[in-house]
Amino acid sequence: MTVKLHGDVTSTCTGRVLITLYEKGIEDVEIVNVDLAKGEHKKPEFLKKQPFGQVPYIEDGDLKLFESRAIARTLAAKYASQGTPLYGSTPNEKALVEQWLEVEAQNYNGPIATIVYHLVFAPMFGQTGDNDVAAAQKAKLESVLDVYEKRLLESKYLAGDFFSLADLSHIPYTYYLIKKAQQGDIYDSRPHVKAWTDSLLSRPSTQRWLKLAGFTQ
Amino acid sequence: MTVKLHGDVTSTCTGRVLITLYEKGIEDVEIVNVDLAKGEHKKPEFLKKQPFGQVPYIEDGDLKLFESRAIARTLAAKYASQGTPLYGSTPNEKALVEQWLEVEAQNYNGPIATIVYHLVFAPMFGQTGDNDVAAAQKAKLESVLDVYEKRLLESKYLAGDFFSLADLSHIPYTYYLIKKAQQGDIYDSRPHVKAWTDSLLSRPSTQRWLKLAGFTQ
Repeated sequence: MTVKLHGDVTSTCTGRVLITLYEKGIEDVEIVNVDLAKGEHKKPEFLKKQPFGQVPYIEDGDLKLFESRAIARTLAAKYASQGTPLYGSTPNEKALVEQWLEVEAQNYNGPIATIVYHLVFAPMFGQTGDNDVAAAQKAKLESVLDVYEKRLLESKYLAGDFFSLADLSHIPYTYYLIKKAQQGDIYDSRPHVKAWTDSLLSRPSTQRWLKLAGFTQ
Repeated sequence: MTVKLHGDVTSTCTGRVLITLYEKGIEDVEIVNVDLAKGEHKKPEFLKKQPFGQVPYIEDGDLKLFESRAIARTLAAKYASQGTPLYGSTPNEKALVEQWLEVEAQNYNGPIATIVYHLVFAPMFGQTGDNDVAAAQKAKLESVLDVYEKRLLESKYLAGDFFSLADLSHIPYTYYLIKKAQQGDIYDSRPHVKAWTDSLLSRPSTQRWLKLAGFTQ
C-alpha cells in the first residue's frame, strides 16, 4: 500500500522520514509537497491532519501519523523484516537504540536546531540570526559530542556495532550544521565522532535524500 | 530479577520511571538514592553509568539503561504481558502512543520544564527564577494545551480511549506545575484537559509515587 508523505523534502524532519523509508526499502511512496514558504502548514486543511502545524505527517492505509521520530519508529517496526534492521537484533540492543534516540531528541536536537535556525534559517527568511545564541548552543553541543566521542571509542555506532534508528535520527541536522552552517569543526576535532558522521553522511539513503532535496546533483 | 533504579525519587524523570514500574506491576525494585544536592550525579563513578550526569538510570540484569522515556518504553515492552498495557493493543494504537509520547517530549516538556525550573527549582536552590521567561513559556504551553483540548474532545486519553505511556509521561511535570508552581489555571480553563489531568494525578501509580517522594502522606 502506498505511503503518502506530506512534507517538504528539504526539511530536517521530512528528511528523517525519507531516510527511514529508503533504509527500509519502502518504495511505494507518494510525496505530497507542503509549501512552507506559502504557509501551507498553518492552513486549516493541514491543521486537521497535523494540529501543531509542523511537517511531516504520513498516511499509511488507515493510519495517519505525525512526529518524525514516531513515524520512523513505526516504519522500523512495521517493516522489521525488510531493509536495514534499525532496532538491532535483540531486546537489549533495541533498548540501547531507544536510549540513544532519546539522547538525540533531548540532548542533541535542541542545541543543533537552535544553531541551524540562527545561522541558516533566519537569514534564509530575511531575518537576522543571533550569533551569540548560536555560539552558546555550540558550546552546549560540544559537551554532548564529548560524550559521543567516548561512546564511539567503544562501539562503531551509538547503540553498538550496528547502524540504527538512533544514528539515522542525527543525519538531517548534522548535514545542515556541516554543509549549510559551515560548523563542521566541532566534528573534525573529535576523531571518532568525525568517522561516525562521515559514515552517516555517505550512506546511500542519505545521498538519496540529499539528491531529492536538491542539495547534491 | 531485581531492577535497580538509581535516581532521586522526587525528580520528575525518576518519577516517570517509578510510575511505569507501578503500572506494570514490577515489584522487585531496589532504589539506589542519588543525592543531587551533594552533586553525586556529577561524580566520576556516576558518569561511568550515565555520561550526561542526569538521573535516573536502571540496571536490569545485564542491561544498563538511561533516559527515562527509553527506560519506560523498554519496561513497557519487556513486561508487556503484565500490568497496564501501556502501548494499547494494536500496531496502529502503538503508533499513536509513540506520536503523543513524542509530542510530550518535543512540545510539552520544553516549556513546562522551563516554567518549573524558574518558579520552583531555582528558588529551591537559592537562585532567582526569571518570571518573564516563565510567563513566555506558559503562553507557549497554553497553545500546546489548546491542541490537547481538541484532541481530548475526541478520545479520553491522548492516543485513544486507553491510558498509555504517552499520558503517563506527562504526569511528573504536570504535578509539579499544578502543586509546586501553582499554575494549575492553564488546565482548569480547558475542561477536557482538566478532566484528563485529574484522571492522571488520581491514578494509584501516581499516588504511590507522590507518597514515596514525600509529597503526600
